[in-house]
Amino acid sequence: MKVNVLLSPLSVDELYFSGKTTVVIDVLRASTTIVNMLRNGAKEVIPVATVEFAVKISGGMFGGLTLLGGERNTKKVEGFALGNSPLEYTAEVVAGKTIVFYTTNGSRAIVKAKFSENLFVCSYNNISAVASKLAELNKDIEIICAGRNNAFSLEDSCCAGKLISEILVLAENIELTDSALAVQALNKSFGKSIFKMLKESEHGKLLKENGFEADIKFCSKLNTTEAIPYLTGNTLKLLPVKQDQTIIES
Amino acid sequence: MKVNVLLSPLSVDELYFSGKTTVVIDVLRASTTIVNMLRNGAKEVIPVATVEFAVKISGGMFGGLTLLGGERNTKKVEGFALGNSPLEYTAEVVAGKTIVFYTTNGSRAIVKAKFSENLFVCSYNNISAVASKLAELNKDIEIICAGRNNAFSLEDSCCAGKLISEILVLAENIELTDSALAVQALNKSFGKSIFKMLKESEHGKLLKENGFEADIKFCSKLNTTEAIPYLTGNTLKLLPVKQDQTIIES
Repeated sequence: MKVNVLLSPLSVDELYFSGKTTVVIDVLRASTTIVNMLRNGAKEVIPVATVEFAVKISGGMFGGLTLLGGERNTKKVEGFALGNSPLEYTAEVVAGKTIVFYTTNGSRAIVKAKFSENLFVCSYNNISAVASKLAELNKDIEIICAGRNNAFSLEDSCCAGKLISEILVLAENIELTDSALAVQALNKSFGKSIFKMLKESEHGKLLKENGFEADIKFCSKLNTTEAIPYLTGNTLKLLPVKQDQTIIES
Repeated sequence: MKVNVLLSPLSVDELYFSGKTTVVIDVLRASTTIVNMLRNGAKEVIPVATVEFAVKISGGMFGGLTLLGGERNTKKVEGFALGNSPLEYTAEVVAGKTIVFYTTNGSRAIVKAKFSENLFVCSYNNISAVASKLAELNKDIEIICAGRNNAFSLEDSCCAGKLISEILVLAENIELTDSALAVQALNKSFGKSIFKMLKESEHGKLLKENGFEADIKFCSKLNTTEAIPYLTGNTLKLLPVKQDQTIIES
């Protein structure tokens, strides 16, 4: 099993992902928020790459069962029902609903990787469940750090490093590329206190300035759920957890 | 002074560099090779972004005084006089000559950053001289890791981290972005033996397979010269070293 990390989705094109097993990470906040939408009972999440497309596809859907969510540069998009805070997506708000979701980095990274054979969404909240699933699949892995405006993000890299460390415990014969080795080292250097690392990151500081400190705390929590969003067609759904599946038992 | 690192030149456009002080790093091998061309008496180096443009501009130049150099994916470009090995560019070969230089990553990164107010080329061979010059200038710095085919390169990141560590000793009040903090951590994790890190990197392995192990050794050597290539117009020249300049005395 070979593990590679893309420190930004920009360096490859859509076809790069054909047939690949891909994990998308955008800790602050899209991947954390998507995990929690589905965990709280949303029927499905439709990630989109532009605000215009979000508005277009939601227009044809039955109003009460569809919600438009997301942000552009930290702030809720005008006219959207919800922003990009995982705390907004409570069971009361999302249960049974379809969420059309746009964010500056995370949802666009998912759309870019849509040709993947398997695509999972990972955050600190569900990291061990994702690691177990990947070890079970035993296929080459591409981890996309959604990053910030096509550039490096410390928090996504550290989360990727932690995910790799967990996979290394569960699987054998793993080959790591340079970027995979690098994020592992970054997790060792900065990942001891996830909350501190998130708070002091550039993106964390920006979120704090905009009043989202509670989100940072929420995004820092390890393994609060075993929910794994996976892409089927153009839609993210909760990965069914079989009776005999490792991720239940872990 | 703020220090930022671009882990690939892809995340920004050419105008991003307007008015900036920029350092381009491509340890294996373009930045090492450029440093050594000028150190060995080349009159100037013209970095170009395409093979076609290299051929075009060299065509109008006086044959004996102009050399075409460079590589595409490790191998010398067909029809070029020289490849991308620093060992080829001896004083006998380059003294007094203009080198038109194309490489897959390094020369293209320099061309992309051509609107910089100051642009320097850094390798392990001249790293302390570059650090001294940057500390003396005391301006915000953008360090470009040329990377490999628009993706992450461990060796360029570690070299950027070492450069930052040296600047931190020489200057005060330095603010590091997330990527600058990250490469510093990578230098601590992987930079203890530069030769070992280079040899075991993806690019190092590829060079070794292609018979360039001596180049890796050469590229790993610290501070063998105080030569600093800087961009003036579209041409790289050796930064004049003044009598009273710090980089002489260090």
